[in-house]
Amino acid sequence: METRTVAVVGGSGYTGIELVRYLLEHPGFRLIAVTSDTDAGKPLAEAYPALLGRTELTYIEHGAIEAMSDLDAVFLAVPHTAAMAIVPRLLARGISVFDLSADFRLKDAAVYEQWYGVPHAAPQLLPCAIYGLPEINRSLLYQRYQERHAARSSTLFSVNLGAPASSGAPASTPAPVLVACPGCYPTASALAIAPALVVGFAAVGPVVINAISGVSGAGRTPKPGTHFCAVNENVNAYGVGTHRHIPEIAQIIAWEAGKQLPVVFTPHLAPMTRGLLATVTLQVKPSVSASALESVYKVAYADEPFVRVLPAGAMPQTASVVGTNNVQVGIKLQEETSTLIASCAIDNLGKGAASQAIQCANIVFGFDETAGLITNPGVV
Amino acid sequence: METRTVAVVGGSGYTGIELVRYLLEHPGFRLIAVTSDTDAGKPLAEAYPALLGRTELTYIEHGAIEAMSDLDAVFLAVPHTAAMAIVPRLLARGISVFDLSADFRLKDAAVYEQWYGVPHAAPQLLPCAIYGLPEINRSLLYQRYQERHAARSSTLFSVNLGAPASSGAPASTPAPVLVACPGCYPTASALAIAPALVVGFAAVGPVVINAISGVSGAGRTPKPGTHFCAVNENVNAYGVGTHRHIPEIAQIIAWEAGKQLPVVFTPHLAPMTRGLLATVTLQVKPSVSASALESVYKVAYADEPFVRVLPAGAMPQTASVVGTNNVQVGIKLQEETSTLIASCAIDNLGKGAASQAIQCANIVFGFDETAGLITNPGVV
Amino acid sequence: METRTVAVVGGSGYTGIELVRYLLEHPGFRLIAVTSDTDAGKPLAEAYPALLGRTELTYIEHGAIEAMSDLDAVFLAVPHTAAMAIVPRLLARGISVFDLSADFRLKDAAVYEQWYGVPHAAPQLLPCAIYGLPEINRSLLYQRYQERHAARSSTLFSVNLGAPASSGAPASTPAPVLVACPGCYPTASALAIAPALVVGFAAVGPVVINAISGVSGAGRTPKPGTHFCAVNENVNAYGVGTHRHIPEIAQIIAWEAGKQLPVVFTPHLAPMTRGLLATVTLQVKPSVSASALESVYKVAYADEPFVRVLPAGAMPQTASVVGTNNVQVGIKLQEETSTLIASCAIDNLGKGAASQAIQCANIVFGFDETAGLITNPGVV
Amino acid sequence: METRTVAVVGGSGYTGIELVRYLLEHPGFRLIAVTSDTDAGKPLAEAYPALLGRTELTYIEHGAIEAMSDLDAVFLAVPHTAAMAIVPRLLARGISVFDLSADFRLKDAAVYEQWYGVPHAAPQLLPCAIYGLPEINRSLLYQRYQERHAARSSTLFSVNLGAPASSGAPASTPAPVLVACPGCYPTASALAIAPALVVGFAAVGPVVINAISGVSGAGRTPKPGTHFCAVNENVNAYGVGTHRHIPEIAQIIAWEAGKQLPVVFTPHLAPMTRGLLATVTLQVKPSVSASALESVYKVAYADEPFVRVLPAGAMPQTASVVGTNNVQVGIKLQEETSTLIASCAIDNLGKGAASQAIQCANIVFGFDETAGLITNPGVV
Repeated sequence: METRTVAVVGGSGYTGIELVRYLLEHPGFRLIAVTSDTDAGKPLAEAYPALLGRTELTYIEHGAIEAMSDLDAVFLAVPHTAAMAIVPRLLARGISVFDLSADFRLKDAAVYEQWYGVPHAAPQLLPCAIYGLPEINRSLLYQRYQERHAARSSTLFSVNLGAPASSGAPASTPAPVLVACPGCYPTASALAIAPALVVGFAAVGPVVINAISGVSGAGRTPKPGTHFCAVNENVNAYGVGTHRHIPEIAQIIAWEAGKQLPVVFTPHLAPMTRGLLATVTLQVKPSVSASALESVYKVAYADEPFVRVLPAGAMPQTASVVGTNNVQVGIKLQEETSTLIASCAIDNLGKGAASQAIQCANIVFGFDETAGLITNPGVV
Repeated sequence: METRTVAVVGGSGYTGIELVRYLLEHPGFRLIAVTSDTDAGKPLAEAYPALLGRTELTYIEHGAIEAMSDLDAVFLAVPHTAAMAIVPRLLARGISVFDLSADFRLKDAAVYEQWYGVPHAAPQLLPCAIYGLPEINRSLLYQRYQERHAARSSTLFSVNLGAPASSGAPASTPAPVLVACPGCYPTASALAIAPALVVGFAAVGPVVINAISGVSGAGRTPKPGTHFCAVNENVNAYGVGTHRHIPEIAQIIAWEAGKQLPVVFTPHLAPMTRGLLATVTLQVKPSVSASALESVYKVAYADEPFVRVLPAGAMPQTASVVGTNNVQVGIKLQEETSTLIASCAIDNLGKGAASQAIQCANIVFGFDETAGLITNPGVV
Repeated sequence: METRTVAVVGGSGYTGIELVRYLLEHPGFRLIAVTSDTDAGKPLAEAYPALLGRTELTYIEHGAIEAMSDLDAVFLAVPHTAAMAIVPRLLARGISVFDLSADFRLKDAAVYEQWYGVPHAAPQLLPCAIYGLPEINRSLLYQRYQERHAARSSTLFSVNLGAPASSGAPASTPAPVLVACPGCYPTASALAIAPALVVGFAAVGPVVINAISGVSGAGRTPKPGTHFCAVNENVNAYGVGTHRHIPEIAQIIAWEAGKQLPVVFTPHLAPMTRGLLATVTLQVKPSVSASALESVYKVAYADEPFVRVLPAGAMPQTASVVGTNNVQVGIKLQEETSTLIASCAIDNLGKGAASQAIQCANIVFGFDETAGLITNPGVV
Repeated sequence: METRTVAVVGGSGYTGIELVRYLLEHPGFRLIAVTSDTDAGKPLAEAYPALLGRTELTYIEHGAIEAMSDLDAVFLAVPHTAAMAIVPRLLARGISVFDLSADFRLKDAAVYEQWYGVPHAAPQLLPCAIYGLPEINRSLLYQRYQERHAARSSTLFSVNLGAPASSGAPASTPAPVLVACPGCYPTASALAIAPALVVGFAAVGPVVINAISGVSGAGRTPKPGTHFCAVNENVNAYGVGTHRHIPEIAQIIAWEAGKQLPVVFTPHLAPMTRGLLATVTLQVKPSVSASALESVYKVAYADEPFVRVLPAGAMPQTASVVGTNNVQVGIKLQEETSTLIASCAIDNLGKGAASQAIQCANIVFGFDETAGLITNPGVV
């Protein structure tokens, strides 16, 4: 296996350090730099004492990445808007980018501006960005691998990035790849009902998604809303009608269903560090039976290395997937109303962010899709 | 204010001790006995050290209630099926009963048998039981007070209970009252959307209720599912399609809407001791505006002593009502899909159980509705 | 009962709002103003939604207190160093001050400077400040009440504050009182072993105090160390050898023992919002028996309205006192080593801060010592 | 590396399943059976859904172990007293035993009987059992490896087990090994002060140990004391003077100090699933300096693969070691009283139980000491 050299840009937050955690043990990626403008000069193990003895790396400034000539890929874990300023430069240098921000997830720049409040800085890249949900978009990711493996350079990015990049990237060099890694809520929501939508089981009526997230989803910056005493012994809905994952969920659900479906999304916060549960209520056609649903789910996810469909009647719990890239899905058909209730548990920092990015990178670089992702978290 | 003498039957569980907590400070009810077959002989303050210095009461056996001649009312916090064996005897002795079990909540004995697995033991009492949700059924509760106050004995119970009780209850004695106190999920669900349903705003499509409860809702008996390590850092849906609050929710929603509405109810468990949040998604008629909804909610709850409608856009958190009989409701209209999202926070042991029972009792016995219920819980 | 008019200065933090919580229900104190420079203009119930329906008060700026002519007392919940700048002005206006900061707790200005890093701004007031631990200093507090009640003005403050105040305070006006309310760790530590120290049971060797606090003790300002994800599922010692409660603990223990005793104090943080447990290990004289210890504790606390000594062998839990001014103490003599292990549970925001301040104020103003402090917190 | 075949006897509890978790990924041990009398017939992944996709193993009954001919070692995670009934039979069959119960930890059968309330059933094995704390007893463990590697059979067990075992174990067969794996509190306490004790820094006066454990230490069986609502938002001392780890701590501390030292041990429970912190207060000789202490600790643990001494002034947190076999130690000398405060964080189920047993087994079977123990737990 050829080793690839990678960096994490924005490595002091929860998503960034979760990337580090996985990459330190990855058999194919060699992590050579982790950046943080706020923590530059500080050993990672000082910021996160759990890393004592696990790495000697020290944070460097974002800008130091510019001088690194040997990077194959960057995992980008900076806030939205910051990401779209960095991505074009990295691509122009031939570096693949796995962007964990929201900047390249939405295909429509106008929708981006509507929800994020600023014009998109690199709209020309939106068509090229692959939405990195492998269970849905694996073939797109795999095509990139094939193109790169065949050393047939796609001219896509060099064209879009303009002449200088083009001239600097000879035809025999594989084009870099831009993967827009999904948000945590869209990942869980999409996987909860993908099998039912793809086969056309949905009836009319909105897709109602209620989700519950742990507090790490709100990021590491201390805020009144993440103070222990504000969150502990408390649950609440938040961002109702305004959460920025709404258009992203609508987009992925439309892809799954092959048509626009109305979506109602209500996220909640629960007093736990990690874990995300999305419970989706979907009206299905009256002809859909419980056994048909079960078959469809079993088949859809049979070969997925990270997704488990629970036995009939069982519902997943977040504790079963925390610390992993795993997904557990439970379904129940309420027959008298033809309603499918599908619940999906993920780790918001794992499958909802860092480990999913690495899963995409594994595919793009031709590693086994599970490389570095079979962790051994506590069972209790 | 004339003092009434009361007992708590089944006082060792969480609901029972919460009743005790309120009754110890109640200006109108004098708590003279608390029963528990498992803890009989043990001081309450030994089972619950927080009561040290607050009460000298000692648990007595359930049966000891039989010999008490001076009871005006019993708060009954025994499991379902146990309650319906006790209630007729208490009523026959002229003792009013506030039953916190599920036994007298459903009006249809067949539905009871379907969901609880046993035939109802006292179906003749079902029509007489008042479903004790004061915000919906205050007038029924108040009628009982008026009847009792006027010393015009209702013959209702004496008829139903048969001759012996009838002969033992002279016409000049007020009939006892049976109040079926609502479950925690039905309370929060009903209050979340009552204003919208009552005015006829609902369109077709199921009422989708996702709710999150603290662990005390599962009772005090140690079980694998309530072990700290099973619940901590974990959320999950449970009882999907099988939770016994489903028919109760359907019943109260039908009363509010004036017609049967399909209901989809998915409860979740969160790692906190108390608190319950019900988030209801309801399709409303396209003509319904956000301002109309806000007005309807404000008016509906304007005079309710325990219900607060939050300012537009704000959603309630359970921590704001824990330890009280208070209810906080937030609403949001998603206009493009004509969907009302209404979220309601209560304390599952308070408004969802004990304090609501006392609220009912206050009305029935002519006390101020808030008597004993203005607590001073921690704000942080 | 004559009503006294009070304000909370610094009412947006956890200690301040806990003062508000108690004062809103106090029969003798009328809370007319709550200040916060950061939240001025905002309703208290907006900052703390649990107060919805419990108060209509709105935060005003600290400075607005200056113009209020009718204040009997101020509860001061601003940070240390800020307090000592405000206190002299309030006293000069004849307003009694219950200061919850550390500024007037230490009797030695040099020790203050050593631990707080700045010279004391009002060292002349240190001798006049009463350390407000009623179980130890009740007689001092009560003397102030008697002086005030007798309208025999103490000239203490007028002398110390200089001529203008002196001339403005006629002999017939009671002097204002300055109470330095104890820190949370000193309160629990002092009450854990006061009975043993006062009777002279201590042998040589340091008093070893290990304590565990909930996170609210760290204040409301969001910091990396109070982020939910930093504290949850975690315990650690902190401030070892540097915690500012060390000299305060040494001072109160010396008062109790009648001599300086070496103190080793190690505080820990636990994942809970409220509650503080101090476990003290004390070498006692070999002649001290378990029964002697038990007797001494029982007698010492027999008439204390807020302190309970648990039965032999039982140890207190913080959950039993959270939300109250109560104290629970458990003791155990390890006979083979003549070691007393005494454990004391309090609410760090209650007896460790706000409610203890009110307990002091009750004494100073001649109210029943328990006025407004008999709360009815959840038992579960 | 020669693979060894192992079983976990008693695999349904928290310690047992933690053994399973590590052994499933171990490069040298092949886990072929996991027993549980209560869960026999149930897939492990049904009892612990986090294992879905990680193992297909199904629980078998304890007795089924008797028929297995190819076991090299058993990890025994049954309750005390049950263990000592099983151990002799396993040893007689030539199977090495890593016993996680308390049955073979204490060298003195009389002390065992005093604290566990029953006579020891196999006192003749106590001298042969190695107390499995590698940082203290590595040489004893390694001797067993050497003996086995040299195929020089120790006759120790065959003698002690009587003739039949002796005749069944030919001289050329390595004798089985019995390792008594330490308790969680003794492990953390011993490692906190081993360096100081071994070099003779201790002065007179008791070793005062205050420790805080997560709830998983109380086992998986549901009990009132492990109910979420009993433990959540609560801390308390327990087992004061009666905890069964007291004699074990005294024994290991005496080994470290080379003499009996009085020990005062107070364990506490905190609302977290895993993690254990022991804070030890030790009087040291007045000549001991902070720099001497720091040097001694650094040197003592320099080559330990799992122990980290934090920089001067830093104290460990349990979250940094949860999910691992790691140990973090912080020290502070309070010079004015010549008191060492040493705090040690471990995972009670890891280094405090399961992973430490595997660390011992690695040594005994000649694997790298860290084999299978370098996990990749979450950093946040």
